[in-house]
Formats: sequence, structure tokens, C-alpha cells
Amino acid sequence: MGVQIALAPGDGIGPEIMDACIRIFAAAGVTEHLDFIPVDMGERVFAAGDARGITDEAVETIERTGLVYKGPMGTPIGGGGKSINVTLRKTFGAFANLRHFQSLPGVDTVFSRAGVPVDMYIVRENIEDTYGGIEHRLTNDVIECKRLISAPGCDQVHHFAFQTAASLGITKVHCAHKANIMKMTDGLFLERFRAEAQHYPGIEIADIIIDALCMNLVLKPQEYRMIVLPNLQGDIVSDLAAGLVGGLGFAPSANIGDHISIFEAVHGTAPDIAGKGVANPTSLLLSGLMLLRYLGMLKQAAIIENALLAALEAGIHTGDVKGKGEPVGTDAFAGAIIDRLGTTPKGKEARPVPTAATPNHTPPVRPHVNKLMRTFETVHSTHCGCDIYIGTTITPLELAQRLERIAQGTAFKLTMISNRGTQVWPSGSPYTEVVDYYRVRFELRDPAVMLGQIGQMPTIHLLTKVAEKFEVTDFQPLKMFDGRPGFSRAQGQ
Amino acid sequence: MGVQIALAPGDGIGPEIMDACIRIFAAAGVTEHLDFIPVDMGERVFAAGDARGITDEAVETIERTGLVYKGPMGTPIGGGGKSINVTLRKTFGAFANLRHFQSLPGVDTVFSRAGVPVDMYIVRENIEDTYGGIEHRLTNDVIECKRLISAPGCDQVHHFAFQTAASLGITKVHCAHKANIMKMTDGLFLERFRAEAQHYPGIEIADIIIDALCMNLVLKPQEYRMIVLPNLQGDIVSDLAAGLVGGLGFAPSANIGDHISIFEAVHGTAPDIAGKGVANPTSLLLSGLMLLRYLGMLKQAAIIENALLAALEAGIHTGDVKGKGEPVGTDAFAGAIIDRLGTTPKGKEARPVPTAATPNHTPPVRPHVNKLMRTFETVHSTHCGCDIYIGTTITPLELAQRLERIAQGTAFKLTMISNRGTQVWPSGSPYTEVVDYYRVRFELRDPAVMLGQIGQMPTIHLLTKVAEKFEVTDFQPLKMFDGRPGFSRAQGQ
Repeated sequence: MGVQIALAPGDGIGPEIMDACIRIFAAAGVTEHLDFIPVDMGERVFAAGDARGITDEAVETIERTGLVYKGPMGTPIGGGGKSINVTLRKTFGAFANLRHFQSLPGVDTVFSRAGVPVDMYIVRENIEDTYGGIEHRLTNDVIECKRLISAPGCDQVHHFAFQTAASLGITKVHCAHKANIMKMTDGLFLERFRAEAQHYPGIEIADIIIDALCMNLVLKPQEYRMIVLPNLQGDIVSDLAAGLVGGLGFAPSANIGDHISIFEAVHGTAPDIAGKGVANPTSLLLSGLMLLRYLGMLKQAAIIENALLAALEAGIHTGDVKGKGEPVGTDAFAGAIIDRLGTTPKGKEARPVPTAATPNHTPPVRPHVNKLMRTFETVHSTHCGCDIYIGTTITPLELAQRLERIAQGTAFKLTMISNRGTQVWPSGSPYTEVVDYYRVRFELRDPAVMLGQIGQMPTIHLLTKVAEKFEVTDFQPLKMFDGRPGFSRAQGQ
Repeated sequence: MGVQIALAPGDGIGPEIMDACIRIFAAAGVTEHLDFIPVDMGERVFAAGDARGITDEAVETIERTGLVYKGPMGTPIGGGGKSINVTLRKTFGAFANLRHFQSLPGVDTVFSRAGVPVDMYIVRENIEDTYGGIEHRLTNDVIECKRLISAPGCDQVHHFAFQTAASLGITKVHCAHKANIMKMTDGLFLERFRAEAQHYPGIEIADIIIDALCMNLVLKPQEYRMIVLPNLQGDIVSDLAAGLVGGLGFAPSANIGDHISIFEAVHGTAPDIAGKGVANPTSLLLSGLMLLRYLGMLKQAAIIENALLAALEAGIHTGDVKGKGEPVGTDAFAGAIIDRLGTTPKGKEARPVPTAATPNHTPPVRPHVNKLMRTFETVHSTHCGCDIYIGTTITPLELAQRLERIAQGTAFKLTMISNRGTQVWPSGSPYTEVVDYYRVRFELRDPAVMLGQIGQMPTIHLLTKVAEKFEVTDFQPLKMFDGRPGFSRAQGQ
């Protein structure tokens, strides 16, 4: 019996491109070693009323095998259903998204015409950031989305990035971020990147602000070999990078976890051409090659990739590709690859063919409880105040006066009021326009005496007093962590 | 006396490129109508110990004139100082960032070589999103940044975008967003875009997911004429678009508010070449032309722009530009523009010269209080539960059992526990890895009876009971707004 892999052909063009990939795999002798087990997820499951978009049997198969090979799947618009792709990654802990973007022969792009080669890997954190989908309408006019970054979440993805760079012989890794604005969250992502890099003295590191990176990727993409990013920024840069090589049809994707990994095409389901036999299987095939390499079947992956490159080099392409000559259908394209198994492209992109050909995979052992990940186990924290968020339409000054009365006789004094992050009290500009949602900050009146002496209950009692007079939309204690403040200042504070 | 404008030359190369721009303005007769008043902000002010980076006198001048023309400024690294650029925009309510990206003659890029013309405007929301800089370390391992989107904030920027499109004769406006993931916050941004569009029947609208947009901008930038985006996404796309036309040195920027507007170069201060007289004034000059057009001096703006385009077309360029022939210095470049005032470039980019030449500007009247902006004034909200966020390292099951005991005898029952946005109780996968920070959701036991009958105090009392047993890191009431839930479900819920 071979290595078992859950197989989800996907929606729209998914089944026909998956058929093409499996045909190529069979012709290359891959399926001798692998058992693909069909599972049910996507549109059909959503349509049957399951808001998760995946059957219990499919979950069981995935958890048992630890591997998924999947085609594109749509998310139902409206109805509250969440993206099946995101649900899979998050539920199964597939914390790192690895994508490879390379200029392909026969694929005409602005960059290929300018003679600018692209060959880069993007490693995207896959679980955190605003992708937690934690959103609340706080007042009539204000909605919040929580952006969460955890130290162990950063450590997982950075460790994977450096391990992958080392195995691929990549000697420089960039961390992209927006730590000049999101100083604490992206500051943590960058700090943990630098901490992980210590273990890889042979790999050079650099960091770059996300906006500058996006400009540079358009101006000089050849300067980047691997970039690691937080979730949303990684999502954006991944598609930008796909554009550099001709579009999503050429960009494979793997979602790697400690137990379960998912190899998938990330383009859409293209319902307009579904069933017509004209779709491009390249992205799904390249994703499958990531699966083979993940399993250690380096030889077969290189043979198939060389055949794909040789077919593209010969000008054979589907209709979505800008290339010379008439396009062919999905089956003919797969046939052209099969015909070229064992040959290599003439260009410099020919892959060396390693000898390793046997899959090595240990299916996961189902954990009894969720694994707790920790980074900072011994940090000491002390309460020093709280931020209370209030829904109101009164002026900052009136709000301040009423809150100061409420705080009388407590351990806390009102130190700041901000609106949308900009301080409006005790100082500020009358030109700052406000909405119906304020943040008010209370800090210890006498930190020299009180710091470390109070727990969290005095802040809860202050909240209770404030809530008796105002609509509270949110509450957060302020804490010092090993003597450093665990909170940002307001703009203008 | 002319229209008064606060003038901040900036740091690094700022003073020399500002000198060049003012020389060009003087030669074009602009300074007859305008009085530039120097103000002090940036590095020198930071160095003097003011964490705001701006003097009181500068604030007074800006508030009195309502206009700022500024060169690049750095943000001190470390020390907690916030970006002076961001502080200005937020404090003075300059809610919309307008940028124009156009292919320029004589500036060699990958896209110019491929014959792909670029001519697009980007309108970026300038105040909200994660740029509020509201960050808290919640536990040892988890940091949060609040992403806030308000309905009136959206309305302001969309109104400005459509007004600008109409005045520029642009017939299609795109809204870019990530509403497939951030369904409530970016959903609001998109919903308000569509609402504003109703007032402009002559303008076609479309929306596009931010990652797809970034791919399309690389593949077919010529398809976009104006794009409106939330703050962070707009920041990223602006720099990407700058790359399409050769870099930040060619991209002007205006920050528009109802009272105060800021026209600025957005490139860096380039300390490595500061004082050498080789810097490129193009971005700052084009930003100055945005200022002239804002004031109604359309004639002078067109004359100067034509002279700039003619100089570039003639191959005259500074050292940062990829072009033919030897580069010239800042002064010689300015001189070449001055020499060409009154001429037009030969290419199709020549600007028609309108007749309007007199500035029209009413300085702002200082408001007595901050203006309250509202969109949804009559929505009715009712409490239906709360999310409490807890710092702990116990398992989801143990946490659930202890919380269910706490909720006994209250109006609420525990309905869900999630970790980093993924549900881990009552159902979930043991493969979901967790960190030291849980969200626990309590909802009314009997909503049919209780909904609309309780205020917020029962949730505060429940919080108090939970806080007696657990470390609380965050608290948010759950509310229905006009009968619709004001909160998202967890991934997998």
C-alpha cells in the first residue's frame, strides 16, 4: 500500500485539471507509490447546507492521512459561510503557506520581454493577522477587526522559512512587514525573524517595509529569493508575484503544518470555462510537484517539471497563456507533458534529476488535546491601568470631565482620550474629526507606590463604574511586561 | 497679499529639492499669488526633544492657513516617536490621500519598454484601519492591533474619490478591499462605496479583492483609472503603482481634508545624497502642481507640467532616473524646466492649458470643538452577550468546564471558545494549535425572552465573575443592530 493522500478535485474547472494532473502522475509512475482517496468538500457540501463546506468523512480522511491534494474551491457569497480554504488551513494548523514564482519558458510577460528573470519563494504566515476574522460592530458607526500576532505563531513560520531556504540552497531571506506603523505586532514578527535567523549563520537576512517591497518587486524582482511575511501582507505580495510570472495559473502553493499539509491550486474555479476542457493545469501540477518533493519523491518531481518546461518551451500552451501559436485544450496539454517525460528543456531552467524516488511519510497520530505553543514563558506582568472604549456623541472635553468625576476616589486617573487613534484630550487639535467611539485611558495615580501592588480587579471595578454611566464597547487592561509597557501611545500623545 | 501656505522643506534632500520647486514656481509667476511661510518640523524638532516633531508655531501657521507644502521627513527610529507625516494627516483631519501615477517621457521602466501606458489615480483612506496605532500586548505571547473602520470615515473618502473622478473626467472607479476575509470592516468600506456611487450615475463602478488587484496592476495596469482603498491596502498599492512608473521619485501626493490639506513628496529623505545637489525634484514639483490645481491655478499648473514633460522628453534627467545620456544636478534640472516654460512636449502627454489662473482659497475658521461625524444615527442596538478574552494555558475543555460553572445562575451560557479565531470548543479539531489567549463567547440562554430586556450591566457582572477566576485581556459586548448580529462567527463555527 502506498502513501495515502486525500484528494479533493475542487469546483468549476477543478475536476478536469485534477484529472490531467493524475494522468501525468500515473504516466510518471508516481501513482505506484501513492493512493489518492477522494474526499467531499466545496460547493456541493455548502449547497447541502453544511456551513463548513466539508463532510465529516473528509475531515476523518485528512486527519488520518495528514495530506491533501486539492483543486480550486469557491466560497459561497453571503450566508455567513467562511472560505473552505481558510477553514482547512486554520483548523488543521497548516501554519505556513509556501509559494514558488518562477519565469516559465513560453509564457510571455512584461518582465520576460524586458529580460528580467523571476525566481522567488514566498512564505506567508497562514493563521493569524486579521485572518482570525474576529470582527465586532462596536457602535452604530464603527466596526473593529482584531489583528492578532503571537510569538509562537511567528516562530513557527520563521523556522519553516529558514529550514526551507537552507534545503533549497537560498542564501538570503527577506522579512517584509509594516513595523513602522504597527510597531508592536509587526515589531514582534520582525523581532522573532531576527531571533530565528541566529540559528542560520550561513543565510543573510534583511528586512523591508511592505510598501517599499511592493515597489521593488515591480522595479527589480530579481533581487529577491525568499520573502517571509505576515498573513495579509503575504496574501497581497503572493498575488503580485504571481502577476510577475504571468498570473495565478503558474503559481503553485503548499500549506505546511506539523501534522497536516495541503497542496493546492490557488487560482479561482473559473466557472465560465468549467467543463469545456480548456483550463490550464499548470498551477495544480506544480502544487502536486511540491507534494512529491515534500514526500521525498525528488526524482519524479524533477522529471515531471522538466517535461512541463519542455512542453512550454515548445510553445504548447492553453488559452489563458500569452504565447505564440494556437492554444491547446487541457487534455492535449497534459498529453504533451506525458510525451516529454524523460526529456529536459533546452533553456537554463532544466532541473537536475536527483535519485531519491521513494516517499517517506508518517501519517499523524491524532493528538488528545490541542497543542499549546509558547515562546515567552517566564515574563512577569503587572497591571498599571486600563483602556476603556466608549460609544458616545458628546465632546472630548465633556467626556473627560465626567470620567474624571467617576475616577475620583479610585487608584486611577484619566490620562488620555483618543478617537480613531488620535489624541483629543488633554491636548489635541480641534481639526481632528471624531466618530461615535472614544478610547479613554486610565493609569495608576501613583505608580511608584502602586505598581505591582494591584491585580486586575481594581480595573474591572473601574470599568463597572464607567459602564453605569456610559455605553462600553471594549475594555483592555494595561500591563507592564518585565518593566516595559505593553501598550502603544496615541497619535500626538 | 497672496494665499498663505505653510512651507516645510523637510529633511535630507528636502531643502534642495524644495529650493528647486520654489525657483520654478517663481519663474512661472506662481509666487506672485502665493506667500510661502516657512515652518519648523521634522528631524530638528525631534532632535530638540519634541516627540511630536512639530513646533507650536508650525501648528499655529498650518491651522491658520489650511495649507502645507512639504518635503520628505524622516521618523526617528526607536524612542516611541510616531511618524510626523502620519501625525499631521491624522491630527488635522486630512482624510484622503490622492496620488497620481503616470508614465513619464524619458523615464525607462519595464512597462514603458513593453508599451504599456500607466495613468491612474489612487485615493487612499488616510486616518483609520490599523493606522490608529492602537496596540496592546494581551498576554506573554500575543499582541493585538485594532483595525477600525467607521462609516463616516468611509463616506468622506468615497465622496472625495467620486468628486475627484467627476472633476477629472474619469468614468470608472474601482474599490479595492479584502471583504472576503474582513467581511464586516471591509464589507462596510465596500457598502459605503456603493452607497456613495448612487449619486454619480455617469461613473461606472467595480470592486476588486486587493490581492487580485495587485496581480492585475502588474499584468494590465492600463485597465485602471482610479482606485479607492482602505489605509493599509492603499499604502501598499500606492507604492506598487509608483514602481509601475519608475519609483517614488515620480509620484506626487496630496492629503486632503475639509479644513487643512497637505501636499508632499512621499519618497525618503535620502540622507546619502543630501547636500550634493543631485536629488530629483520631480515628485515634490508634481505635488506642488496638485496644490496649484487645488487652489484653482490650473493654467500655471499645466504650463509647469508641460515644461517638466518637455525637459524629460528631451532626455534631461537626474541620476536616479534610468534614461539616455548623462544625468544632471538638481539645479540644472530645474533650469531646464524653467527654460521650457511655455513650451509643450511633442508626445501625447501634453496638457491642455486652461485659463483659470487665480487662486481661490478660504482659510479655515478654527472650530471650537471637534466635529462629530455620523452616518447611522437611528440604528437600534440590543445586548445579547459578550466575548471575553482570557489569558491562560489550560486546555479548551477544562476552560469550558470552569466557565460553565461560572455562568451558572446568570442570564448567559457559554456558546463558543476560539483560539486565534478558530473554534476549539464545543467542536473543533485537536490539530488546531493554540496559544495562551482564548476568546470565550457568552450568549443569552433564552434570547426569545431576554433579547431587548437587558442592558450592558449583566455582561459587566459576568465579566467581573470571570475576572475573579481568570486573567482577562479584553472584553467586548455582543449586540444586535436593527436585528442583525454585530459580530462575526469563529472559523469552523
